[in-house]
Amino acid sequence: MREVYAIGSAMTSFSRLEYPLSEIAAYPAMFAMQDAGISKIDHLYVANMGGGRVNGQTGLASAVVDSLSLTPAGAETIENGPASGASALKQGWMAVASGLHDVVMVIGAERMREVNNLEATDFVATLTHPLAEYIYGVTLPSLAGMFTRLYMEKYGVTARHLAMVAVKNHGNACLNPFAHLHQPITVEGIIDSPEAMTNNPFVADPLRFFDCCPVSDGGACVILASAETAKKLGKPMIRLAGVGQATDTHCVHERAEPTDLLAVRGAARQAFKMAGVKPSDVDVAELHDAFTILEIVESEEVGFFKKGEGHLALERGDTALTGKLPINTSGGLKGKGHPVGATGVGQAHEIILQLRGDAGKRQVKNAKIGFTCNFGGFGNNVVCLTFIREK
Amino acid sequence: MREVYAIGSAMTSFSRLEYPLSEIAAYPAMFAMQDAGISKIDHLYVANMGGGRVNGQTGLASAVVDSLSLTPAGAETIENGPASGASALKQGWMAVASGLHDVVMVIGAERMREVNNLEATDFVATLTHPLAEYIYGVTLPSLAGMFTRLYMEKYGVTARHLAMVAVKNHGNACLNPFAHLHQPITVEGIIDSPEAMTNNPFVADPLRFFDCCPVSDGGACVILASAETAKKLGKPMIRLAGVGQATDTHCVHERAEPTDLLAVRGAARQAFKMAGVKPSDVDVAELHDAFTILEIVESEEVGFFKKGEGHLALERGDTALTGKLPINTSGGLKGKGHPVGATGVGQAHEIILQLRGDAGKRQVKNAKIGFTCNFGGFGNNVVCLTFIREK
Repeated sequence: MREVYAIGSAMTSFSRLEYPLSEIAAYPAMFAMQDAGISKIDHLYVANMGGGRVNGQTGLASAVVDSLSLTPAGAETIENGPASGASALKQGWMAVASGLHDVVMVIGAERMREVNNLEATDFVATLTHPLAEYIYGVTLPSLAGMFTRLYMEKYGVTARHLAMVAVKNHGNACLNPFAHLHQPITVEGIIDSPEAMTNNPFVADPLRFFDCCPVSDGGACVILASAETAKKLGKPMIRLAGVGQATDTHCVHERAEPTDLLAVRGAARQAFKMAGVKPSDVDVAELHDAFTILEIVESEEVGFFKKGEGHLALERGDTALTGKLPINTSGGLKGKGHPVGATGVGQAHEIILQLRGDAGKRQVKNAKIGFTCNFGGFGNNVVCLTFIREK
Repeated sequence: MREVYAIGSAMTSFSRLEYPLSEIAAYPAMFAMQDAGISKIDHLYVANMGGGRVNGQTGLASAVVDSLSLTPAGAETIENGPASGASALKQGWMAVASGLHDVVMVIGAERMREVNNLEATDFVATLTHPLAEYIYGVTLPSLAGMFTRLYMEKYGVTARHLAMVAVKNHGNACLNPFAHLHQPITVEGIIDSPEAMTNNPFVADPLRFFDCCPVSDGGACVILASAETAKKLGKPMIRLAGVGQATDTHCVHERAEPTDLLAVRGAARQAFKMAGVKPSDVDVAELHDAFTILEIVESEEVGFFKKGEGHLALERGDTALTGKLPINTSGGLKGKGHPVGATGVGQAHEIILQLRGDAGKRQVKNAKIGFTCNFGGFGNNVVCLTFIREK
């Protein structure tokens, strides 16, 4: 297997974007090519979830490869729900590692503004089991609400801990010009004050408005290449060193212990093993905080903290920008936004910036090893990536 | 790069199926596992085009990997329009060739019966350019109609040649118990008789009803593995020896010469080169005859016949079951059916049967080298595969 490097990277703002889906995909790709200093690729992957249903467009990758004038390079659309982005990066990794292709572009793109928030929730709920979940009105927020209640009872997580995740990630997002939300919040403002019930109503008890990520449009692009090509370009050598993926039961209620996220655990273990590093080696991580509880639980399942102790690490400030292991420096899904198919590529973009030392006001000092966890379904298909900055 | 072998293969009937999309995907997978003699895989790809839009189901691969009890294997859905199936086989090839995975399952599945034929045509038209084609009412049959007219004028193809493709492929389909249409037709019956205008009305002049493939439901599965694993299983050694892919302009009208299918040409050239064989070495081929004209044109562009002479080879009977190079022995999309995302995997299944000598009444004698062409969009993203039977 050949080693694989990230040679270019870019993203649009994650926000509400006016332009069509294929342009949301194409714009970051143009910037990433500029960043890499290349004008030609061998293959394209586009991660997207809603093109067919939300935007009435299929064959998105074929459209994008042409609008970027990159034909005759092959192109596919990759869908793995909210983990589509990291899944596409995994395909890109394989394409280069196998030796079939030398330069592979991976785009994630989503345009959600065609639908309102209720329709968006219904759309994302098409990820659940059609006959055992969806038909009973299950949505991702409702699953997350039940999951959070169990977690609170079992491990002593409180509404205050959840709020602390939101406050931290909104704070980080304020330092990220490409984030969807530039809105500093405080624990007092969102749960302790008399106005909190109005400012921050329940969405799926115990989850409130500020526990849920926004519905965003956005695109991101990472270009991967062989070591030989990466060296020629003279860019910092950021290696995609570990790729892990695991699945779990489609229905959440079929899991022996629903508070365990076994797919996160399995995917992370593989991504660390392949890279030859330990969770404690990681300098900066992007976790999939579609709901605040998920950042806490994933920080445990990937091995950063003991099971049931993620909220304690959060309390200690370990995961703050200035902590021992900053998590979601980009603002995370909570603050940066969650354009579903683009999220995993956006996570990788943040890690690449951090490892290059290009993260501006939210730069983590001397970051050399970065990690991402991209969470599909309600934890039924998870992809983790480990990035290492080489000399 | 490691060599990659097809160790198991199966399909459902391509027809109108009662069961849900995830089961259309799961059933052939169970038979393919039985065929291979395995009960465990490392990774799953599901090729599908309409899950989100037509069936209201996303994250299909995550659903299928669980319904087959194959968790924690990773899983992705691959979409490349009507070429999704061969695109997924390409991903499977890379996963094994790279050494990342050893046994990879590739499923193609589509359930179209949620929509009527008009809605199906509209759905497939979401492949066209949203602002330069779709919005003006362009559909795949209308593009194919205009393309056919040009081809007739330029190369002397007649309505009779088109009918001969349909007659041949309906005949082959009658020998395939898994084909959608078991309806023998004659050139006289569909174009020469007084009843022809009623039996076979125009769909998009010059294309008539019998020039267009049916709208089918169906699933197919091919399991790929390394040489080491394939040898252990003691199955015939069918190597996926060549993988080629190329794209062309999204809009058909932007092509310098619209009667040239450059993506077919490019993909085929790669698939032959990688396999180290020539077009004239091929014993049996499945081409993407969504419209009868396409079989003729692809038979030229992949290199079987000179440009503009495919219809002459057809006239001579070269592409008949008993000819020098039988094409679409399965019945093709025309006779076997075209469950969009499943088609490419179904093509591979036919070639695997032929190379194993398991094709029953439609067996091509001593078939050792097989070829498939899976055509996405209106030729904007094409994937070709070469299979070789080893001793």
